[in-house]
Amino acid sequence: MVKSLIYAQSGGPTSVINASALGVIDEARKRGYKVYASIHGIDGVLGEKISDVDNEDEKQLRRLLVTPAAAFGSCRRKLPSFSDDGSPYAKILEVFKKLNVRIFVYNGGNDSMNTCAKLAEFFADNKYDCKVIGVPKTIDNDLVGTDHCPGFGSAAKFIATSCREIALDTAVYAHGRVTIVEIMGRDAGWLTAASALAGKENGPDLIYLPEKSFSPLIFAEKCREIFDKKQTCLVALSEGIRDEEGNYIGSYSQKESKDAFNNTQLGGVGAYLAAFLTSKFGIKTRAIELSLLQRCAAHVSSKTDVTEAYECGKKAVEAADSGKTGYMVSIKRLSSSPYLVEYGLTPLSLVSAGTTSVPDEFISPSGDYVTPAFLSYAAPLVRGECDVEYEDGLPLYAKLKNQPIKL
Amino acid sequence: MVKSLIYAQSGGPTSVINASALGVIDEARKRGYKVYASIHGIDGVLGEKISDVDNEDEKQLRRLLVTPAAAFGSCRRKLPSFSDDGSPYAKILEVFKKLNVRIFVYNGGNDSMNTCAKLAEFFADNKYDCKVIGVPKTIDNDLVGTDHCPGFGSAAKFIATSCREIALDTAVYAHGRVTIVEIMGRDAGWLTAASALAGKENGPDLIYLPEKSFSPLIFAEKCREIFDKKQTCLVALSEGIRDEEGNYIGSYSQKESKDAFNNTQLGGVGAYLAAFLTSKFGIKTRAIELSLLQRCAAHVSSKTDVTEAYECGKKAVEAADSGKTGYMVSIKRLSSSPYLVEYGLTPLSLVSAGTTSVPDEFISPSGDYVTPAFLSYAAPLVRGECDVEYEDGLPLYAKLKNQPIKL
Repeated sequence: MVKSLIYAQSGGPTSVINASALGVIDEARKRGYKVYASIHGIDGVLGEKISDVDNEDEKQLRRLLVTPAAAFGSCRRKLPSFSDDGSPYAKILEVFKKLNVRIFVYNGGNDSMNTCAKLAEFFADNKYDCKVIGVPKTIDNDLVGTDHCPGFGSAAKFIATSCREIALDTAVYAHGRVTIVEIMGRDAGWLTAASALAGKENGPDLIYLPEKSFSPLIFAEKCREIFDKKQTCLVALSEGIRDEEGNYIGSYSQKESKDAFNNTQLGGVGAYLAAFLTSKFGIKTRAIELSLLQRCAAHVSSKTDVTEAYECGKKAVEAADSGKTGYMVSIKRLSSSPYLVEYGLTPLSLVSAGTTSVPDEFISPSGDYVTPAFLSYAAPLVRGECDVEYEDGLPLYAKLKNQPIKL
Repeated sequence: MVKSLIYAQSGGPTSVINASALGVIDEARKRGYKVYASIHGIDGVLGEKISDVDNEDEKQLRRLLVTPAAAFGSCRRKLPSFSDDGSPYAKILEVFKKLNVRIFVYNGGNDSMNTCAKLAEFFADNKYDCKVIGVPKTIDNDLVGTDHCPGFGSAAKFIATSCREIALDTAVYAHGRVTIVEIMGRDAGWLTAASALAGKENGPDLIYLPEKSFSPLIFAEKCREIFDKKQTCLVALSEGIRDEEGNYIGSYSQKESKDAFNNTQLGGVGAYLAAFLTSKFGIKTRAIELSLLQRCAAHVSSKTDVTEAYECGKKAVEAADSGKTGYMVSIKRLSSSPYLVEYGLTPLSLVSAGTTSVPDEFISPSGDYVTPAFLSYAAPLVRGECDVEYEDGLPLYAKLKNQPIKL
């Protein structure tokens, strides 16, 4: 029976997770593996929803390189530890044996790497020869053990591009307003920091990350100072900014405001601070949430990011096929200028132990901008544009059948 | 003394108003005019802030073709009628005489066309030989007397692209949520309708325009029906949707909810309806406002739109130079397939008399989607991609000096 590989996607979508999928598929086929995809992450194995990738149209598969979201579906399941509940493990083993699965590649963030670690251990303990390798994916860029994460560069490129465009838009009037752009990243400010790539001239005047404590009063004074001078002010801030006591600024609003149905208001921190500025100084404000767009705007994804995502997928198969298990593929930066990386492997136990914050040397001492060192770090990651195929003026993305096979 | 032209921009920015500027500049130079720009619209003339376009770097001027916002600054001033207050007219005449201005081209929406009409009449009454021509610009696509407006196609392309990407993003989980995308257009639903270009498969399931009365209860039932079937549901709706009595649905929220500072909440209609759905059915929801991005995302502007904007600018100068005054350049569609247009002139009095709504034949009888006729109308307008210049992974946009000359 031919040896096979199962690939699955997990966690929040990105613009490049499907590029990793294609890397896995291409390398696995090259090495003689039959390739299956588990639909909706590990849930597909547990619920016997597994597709044969050979049933997909080859042209659609090629399009995965620039298709956002998760073409094979995603899930948010965290496997229980084996000692708490062995039943999902038994099911996974049953399915894997049926399909002669010898490599499992899981593409996701922290939780997915935790699942990988548990499965690698389980297979080893049960003497079932299946190598487990994780492929990193997160726009948040907060995985331990890799210089950066596939998905970050494209999100960063969309954020910086949008901030540049918003800066131009908000500067047109002689008397403007303060515009606050709220960016994803509950605990790590990488994405918000990336807004600085737009430049000082057509980009944010102020940048606030969750890594530094935030004072609404100091913030308000700084905005007013800039606004008085320029008659416009652009602020980029992370949804996760916190005050000195560690309370989310966004939670101020949730505590104190009610929506029309008398529920606590879930409005964002940007909207809260915009209202705060207006109530304090009477300045006109606007809050913008980049929301889902920042993780799915594949039409403007970074070629560097797409290429690395694809390579990480290939590397996972290469590692597994050469006998490695229990690792996440990682990116090691050899040099920023010229930009050079090599791919490596990081033990999964290391990855799922924590997350990476933006280090102090990347944040300006005043806490309201980033340093040149950060710009040197981030600039190469957004470089290069992808050849997105357009039809009738709109980007063409892969459409897979994801038809479950009969097990 | 050499004859000269003043060009100015007014109203909300778009992705292509600067393409019109370049069309004006190129055609005026070709015809031997000295070209000035009034900084911040007509305010620049009133405040003697006028730049000599020859002082700009030629490379930066070329970049205007794909630069969003309003590179010469904008304003929201509406000229008083001459009988109410003649002083601004006297000032304009003084400046125009000093610079020997023989053509004034104003690039904007309804209010700007009103200003054009007043100035054309004033110059004629005062026997000052200055031709006044308006160049249409609005993402809202609601100007009378033209098949469509420069600015609409690029906004429509961004909206449809984003809706396609959001649809992919929100479909990844086995159990998803209802996602509501709120789109600009207080009185006309053209932009919201354009979301349908994303297609039925990866685009909105439901589309609501201000042209049809909106019932939150019927809306909620339709969402639940679709959600029950697909476990995901994407809704595109206009900020301006109204109930049967003509009240903005967005105003429900403003009436009933308070922000953290006890001010009435200015949250959008999308957020309101998302909360309504959750409170009614317990469905998970998310509201996304495309906000300013839809009018400034020039990195994904429509080549058709950019080309037409440029041509409208040229046409304005050509018309004025041949003695026409008191007109707005208009686009007449000769055929949708193949797409063919010709440029014409519409009397300004006609333009400023009203706005254009989405007609009945473009809205499905159920009021929650658009018709194939609308798709035939809109599809050509988003076609073609622009050669945006990138540097270090980000689009390069024009940077003008806008240095006022001494009058």
